[in-house]
Amino acid sequence: MNRRRRIYEGKAKILYEGPEPGTLIAHFKDDATAFNNKKHEIVDGKGVLNNRISEYIFENLNAIGIQTHFIKRMNMREQLIKECEIIPLEIIVRNVAAGSIAKRLGLDEGTQLPRSIIEFCYKNDALDDPMVSEEHITAFGWASPQEIDDIMALAIRINDFLTGMFRAVGIRLVDFKIECGRYFEGDTMRVILADEISPDSCRLWDIDSNDKLDKDRFRQEMGGMLEAYQEVATRLGIHNINTEHKGTGPVLVK
Amino acid sequence: MNRRRRIYEGKAKILYEGPEPGTLIAHFKDDATAFNNKKHEIVDGKGVLNNRISEYIFENLNAIGIQTHFIKRMNMREQLIKECEIIPLEIIVRNVAAGSIAKRLGLDEGTQLPRSIIEFCYKNDALDDPMVSEEHITAFGWASPQEIDDIMALAIRINDFLTGMFRAVGIRLVDFKIECGRYFEGDTMRVILADEISPDSCRLWDIDSNDKLDKDRFRQEMGGMLEAYQEVATRLGIHNINTEHKGTGPVLVK
Ligand SMILES: Nc1ncnc2c1ncn2[C@@H]1O[C@H](COP(=O)(O)OP(=O)(O)O)[C@@H](O)[C@H]1O
Ligand SMILES: Nc1ncnc2c1ncn2[C@@H]1O[C@H](COP(=O)(O)OP(=O)(O)O)[C@@H](O)[C@H]1O
Ligand SMILES: [Mg+2]
Ligand SMILES: [Mg+2]
Repeated sequence: MNRRRRIYEGKAKILYEGPEPGTLIAHFKDDATAFNNKKHEIVDGKGVLNNRISEYIFENLNAIGIQTHFIKRMNMREQLIKECEIIPLEIIVRNVAAGSIAKRLGLDEGTQLPRSIIEFCYKNDALDDPMVSEEHITAFGWASPQEIDDIMALAIRINDFLTGMFRAVGIRLVDFKIECGRYFEGDTMRVILADEISPDSCRLWDIDSNDKLDKDRFRQEMGGMLEAYQEVATRLGIHNINTEHKGTGPVLVK
Repeated sequence: MNRRRRIYEGKAKILYEGPEPGTLIAHFKDDATAFNNKKHEIVDGKGVLNNRISEYIFENLNAIGIQTHFIKRMNMREQLIKECEIIPLEIIVRNVAAGSIAKRLGLDEGTQLPRSIIEFCYKNDALDDPMVSEEHITAFGWASPQEIDDIMALAIRINDFLTGMFRAVGIRLVDFKIECGRYFEGDTMRVILADEISPDSCRLWDIDSNDKLDKDRFRQEMGGMLEAYQEVATRLGIHNINTEHKGTGPVLVK
């Protein structure tokens, strides 16, 4: 394992060179970070859960024709993905006011927004991921107008799917963040969904109690982060979190 | 004068009821404010200069077919304007990085932008005029998509005109801020330019020395604010700052 070439180590994941050209292996770490790394802890088991939840979501998105970088899960902490050219934007889709939008626009946390709102932030830790508009994105060439349109169409479909999926298990999808990348197949370039979708990158509230089942438990020092992520996995019917492979082999008779 | 009904007192101007329905009188005060009123001083003569400079610019914009609220100057500090329904946005047009964009995107002040960039801020002092995107504007109904298009077209034309005008007198137009309003003529609604354009709302740098000829002199405690505004007026060929009316009557033989 240690002979693989490490391409990039981020706050939550490590990327290794994959087995085939054009592939990477994403390794999910147990590091929990917030406020651009100013807060940092190790939460044993978080990486395993996020790897599994993200796999589940990306597989389902692939199944409805939303192209993603996900190929397959390799083991508890790792997944095989298509390498793409990451567009340096964090795309945030908001259904309910929480976090920065509540503060910036003076809205009470929990207020339903008049409609879903897509925000873009320039992915740049040194600048604290500042919010930007289409004007900045096109002026600085971070994405073309066509790519922005593609990203927004992708974001809207993902929002619909996730809202339904979480609603079915008693969870309100407050907001989530995605990253997209350029993927080349021969001559054609496509914008595909990359990175991860997990309780690290979503705000998920229990429908009845409004309990937070996401990274805000960590940001706000509420405790119970791992239990919350486990609860999300359980509600989604994700089992065998601690197995290396989805078992289809013989089962021992007890 | 004191029997007029006062409609609104802002940081830089007072609005009075005008002589005809649908008109207002804008009175330019000598108050200089910055950082959302956290810094505040009286600069004797600023109101007179801004009234005169804004008149000059709005008259010229009217002349090239850009509809504005400006009707005529009444006296040294006051102008007659069309009342409109202000769209609660500050529209900023930037040609060169300075101020907040330099800080937010990590650009050196003075860097030419790859192209002109239009930004929107939600005009709300209590929230410190947060930057917003078209998504927020349409979701909260501050302006319709059509109105945003109209505003952007207006902003681009104004930028072209002002850039040329200031260039001709040795001044670089770094950025400026406008406000727009809805003006109803019978059944048709038009987006028109409102408020003011003056060294309070522009960044103006001398082409050769890069000397600042605008409100940054006040924000950055450089001194010489009034002299700079006077310099802008003089270069634009604006005379008779201290006369009540543009004199066309008989002139005394000395
Ligand atoms: N399919 C992909 N191809 C290339 N890079 C990717 C892909 N998916 C995600 N990435 C990038 O890999 C990194 C993931 O690691 P992470 O720990 O989340 O990093 P960060 O701290 O930058 O958010 C991110 O920089 C992300 O943009
Ligand atoms: N034509 C107009 N009709 C109605 N309101 C206007 C018009 N032009 C400008 N205004 C508003 O008048 C006020 C001008 O006063 P100002 O001192 O600049 O206020 P502020 O402190 O709110 O910026 C602003 O609120 C501006 O939006
Ligand atoms: Mg990340
Ligand atoms: Mg004002």
